[in-house]
Amino acid sequence: MANDLLAVEEARARIIAALTPTAAETVALADGAGRVLARGVVARLTQPPADVSAMDGYAVRAADAPEGAVLRMAGAAPAGRPFAGRVGPGEAVRIFTGGFVPDGADAILLQEDASPSDGAVRVNETVQAGRWIRRRGLDFAEGTQVLPARRKLTARDIGLAAASNNPWLAVHRRPRVGILATGDEIALPGDPIPPGGIVSSNAHALAALVRAAGGEPVVLPIAPDDTAAIADVAAGAHAFDLLVTTGGASVGDHDLIQQALGGEGFELGFWKIAMRPGKPLIWGRLGRTPVLGLPGNPVSALVCGVVFLIPAIARLSGLEGAPTPTRRVLTAVPLAQNDRRADHLRAALSVDAQGRMLVTPAPVQDSSMLATLARADALVMRAPFAPALPAGAEVEAIILAELGV
Amino acid sequence: MANDLLAVEEARARIIAALTPTAAETVALADGAGRVLARGVVARLTQPPADVSAMDGYAVRAADAPEGAVLRMAGAAPAGRPFAGRVGPGEAVRIFTGGFVPDGADAILLQEDASPSDGAVRVNETVQAGRWIRRRGLDFAEGTQVLPARRKLTARDIGLAAASNNPWLAVHRRPRVGILATGDEIALPGDPIPPGGIVSSNAHALAALVRAAGGEPVVLPIAPDDTAAIADVAAGAHAFDLLVTTGGASVGDHDLIQQALGGEGFELGFWKIAMRPGKPLIWGRLGRTPVLGLPGNPVSALVCGVVFLIPAIARLSGLEGAPTPTRRVLTAVPLAQNDRRADHLRAALSVDAQGRMLVTPAPVQDSSMLATLARADALVMRAPFAPALPAGAEVEAIILAELGV
Repeated sequence: MANDLLAVEEARARIIAALTPTAAETVALADGAGRVLARGVVARLTQPPADVSAMDGYAVRAADAPEGAVLRMAGAAPAGRPFAGRVGPGEAVRIFTGGFVPDGADAILLQEDASPSDGAVRVNETVQAGRWIRRRGLDFAEGTQVLPARRKLTARDIGLAAASNNPWLAVHRRPRVGILATGDEIALPGDPIPPGGIVSSNAHALAALVRAAGGEPVVLPIAPDDTAAIADVAAGAHAFDLLVTTGGASVGDHDLIQQALGGEGFELGFWKIAMRPGKPLIWGRLGRTPVLGLPGNPVSALVCGVVFLIPAIARLSGLEGAPTPTRRVLTAVPLAQNDRRADHLRAALSVDAQGRMLVTPAPVQDSSMLATLARADALVMRAPFAPALPAGAEVEAIILAELGV
Repeated sequence: MANDLLAVEEARARIIAALTPTAAETVALADGAGRVLARGVVARLTQPPADVSAMDGYAVRAADAPEGAVLRMAGAAPAGRPFAGRVGPGEAVRIFTGGFVPDGADAILLQEDASPSDGAVRVNETVQAGRWIRRRGLDFAEGTQVLPARRKLTARDIGLAAASNNPWLAVHRRPRVGILATGDEIALPGDPIPPGGIVSSNAHALAALVRAAGGEPVVLPIAPDDTAAIADVAAGAHAFDLLVTTGGASVGDHDLIQQALGGEGFELGFWKIAMRPGKPLIWGRLGRTPVLGLPGNPVSALVCGVVFLIPAIARLSGLEGAPTPTRRVLTAVPLAQNDRRADHLRAALSVDAQGRMLVTPAPVQDSSMLATLARADALVMRAPFAPALPAGAEVEAIILAELGV
C-alpha cells in the first residue's frame, strides 16, 4: 500500500519544478510593497551625497581643536543649506545633523562639548579627526545595487528604493490564479442549498490564501459534475497562470475529469499524497496552464493550500518556492506514534514562563472540522512513522499567522 | 537628563488609550480577509446537517453486523443524495464519505472490511455501534457564534464564515491614515532635487507599512517648512482617522508647527522618547483627528512606525493595539551594555544546527543607514541600561517579516 503514496516533499518539488515565474511589469514605487523584483534596483544617487555631520555642533579642523581652544565662528551649515566657504585655521562653522561638512573641516565638535560666545566657540573636550562625520556614500553609492532581483519588497525596501531615487520598479506580474469549485451538491453562501447539499467554502477561502501569498485570485462560477461544464472552464484556462480546482480529486472522479478535459490537451496525474488531511491531489496541465486539483473537503483543501499552493504562488511570483517555513516548538501534550502519512495537527500556540513556544493540538482532528482549523494557530508536523513523544518534546510546526493565512 | 525622556511603553500606552476603533461597514465575504470583525459571525446552518458517514463503506445496524454476517443491500447514499428509506434488520446501504446515515443505521462498515457480492455484503470485521459516524453539528450548530467580534479574519475564517452561510460580514472600516512629509529640502523620487536636498523616502515607506498593518494610506503632497502650507494640511485633517507627519519633530521645529496649527485647535505634545533610533515624537490632536509626528530621519521614522504606528492602526482597526510582538532568540555575538535609551538593533536572523533562531546585529548601527534597515530581518530590543551580554545569550527581538514590513 505504501508504495502508491507520494511523499509531501516529492510532490511539492515536482510542482515547483514545473512552474516558471511570470513576466515582468513596471509598477510605481508606491505599488511595489509585497511584489517580487524582476530586476535589481540600482541607486541613482549617493547617500549621503557628501560628508555630513552626524550630530548638531561645530565643523572644525581637529588640529586646531584641543580642549581649551577658542575658535572663530565663520558661518553656519544647516541640513539642506551647505556652507559655501572654507573653514580656515582657527575657525569653526555651526553645523546640524545632516549638514554638509564644509571644505577645510575634518571633524565635528559636539554641541554639548562647546561653549559658544559672541562670534566664537570654546572647545571643552578635545576633538578627534574624523569624529561625528558620516562619510559620503555611507548608506549607498550611485550605481550600486541596493535591492537584488527576486526579492519580495518590504515597506523598508520601498523606503530604500525611494531614497535611492527610483520612482518605478520592475516586478513580476502577480500570478493570476483561477479557482474552480466543482460539485452538484455545493451552493454559494446565501444561495439556495440543494437537498443534502453544503455551502461552498473552499473557493473564497482559497482566494484569500492566494491573495495573502501574493497572487491575484479569480473565483470561477461553481461547475456542476458534468463534462460540458468542466470542459467550458478548461477552454478558458489559458487566462490563468495556474488553475486551482477543489473537489473532483477522488478516485471515482477520475473518469469524469479525464473525459471532460480530454479535448483540451489535458495531461494530468492523480496523486495520492502520503499526508493527512488531504490525500488526493491532481497535478497536470491544460495547454500551457498548470492545474492543481485540491481535495473537496474544506480542511484538506486549505491544508493542501498551505503545503502546495503557497509555494507554487511564491514560485510563479519569482521566488524560489521553498517549502512552507516551520519552527521548532514544544508540544504541550504527549503525541501518539504516527502512521504512514505525514500529519498536520491543528494546534493552539502559547508561550510558557520561559518564553518558549508551546503547541497544543486540538483533541479531535477529524478532517470535517473546519472550525478547528479556523481556531488553530499552527499546524504541528508529524512525519510518516514519527515516534510517540512525551509532553515537552520538540516538534516542527507551521505558524499560520506568519503566512498571513 | 533621564527625567525628561518618556519610556517607549508609556508612550505607546498613551497613544493607544487616546484612540477608538473606526465604525463598522458591511463587506462581501470575499473582501473580508485581513479585516477585523465588528460583530461576531453566527452560523446560519448546522454542519454537518445530519449524522454523516466519515468513510466510504456501508451503513448498517451494528447489532446485525458481527464478523461473518451477510447483509442484504437495500440501496445507496452518496454525498448529496440521501437514501430515502430505512435500514431494516439484516440490511446495509452503500454509503460514501459525507453521505447522510440513513434512518435505522447506527454504524458504518468500512469498505475495506467488507466483501460485496451480488445484492449483499459480507462483514469481515465486527462493526461497533456509532463507529465512523460524524454527528450532526460536529463542526458547528446553527445559531452558535463561529467567529467572535474583534477577530482579524484569516483565509480559514473566510472559509468558516462561508461554510456557515454568511455572505456578508460587519467589519471595522479600514482606518484612513494621512501621511505628510515636511521639509524644504526633500523631493519626490524622480523629481528635481534641490541643492543639498534629499529624496523623500518616508512617506511611501510609511504608506506601505500602513497598508501592511491594515490601514488605508493617503500620501499628501510634501509640505515646505512654512506655516501656511502646514496650516492647509491641518485644515483637511478631518478626512483622516489618523494624521502621520514625518520631519518637523525636532526641538527647533516646535515653534513652526505650533504656530502653523494654532488656528486649527491643535493640542500637541513634543515627546522625547527614551529610544534609539527615533527620539523625538509629536503626539496630539487636530480637532478630532489624532496626530502622530514621526522623526524625519528615515530609519527613525520606520522604527517608530513599527513601535508606535502599527499598534495605533491595530487599535483603530478594532484590535487591542498590543505592543509589537517580540520573540526570544539568541544573540550570535556579544552585546555591549546599553545606555538610558531603549535600543532597536538592526539584525540578521539565522537558524543554527539545533534549529534555534540567532540574531546578528549589523556592526554599524548609524541611524542614517537605511540600507542596513532594509537588509535587517529583526530588531533586537535592548532595554535602557541592559547589561552587556555574551554571545549565545537570550534577547528579545521584533521579527520584521512577521509584521509584513
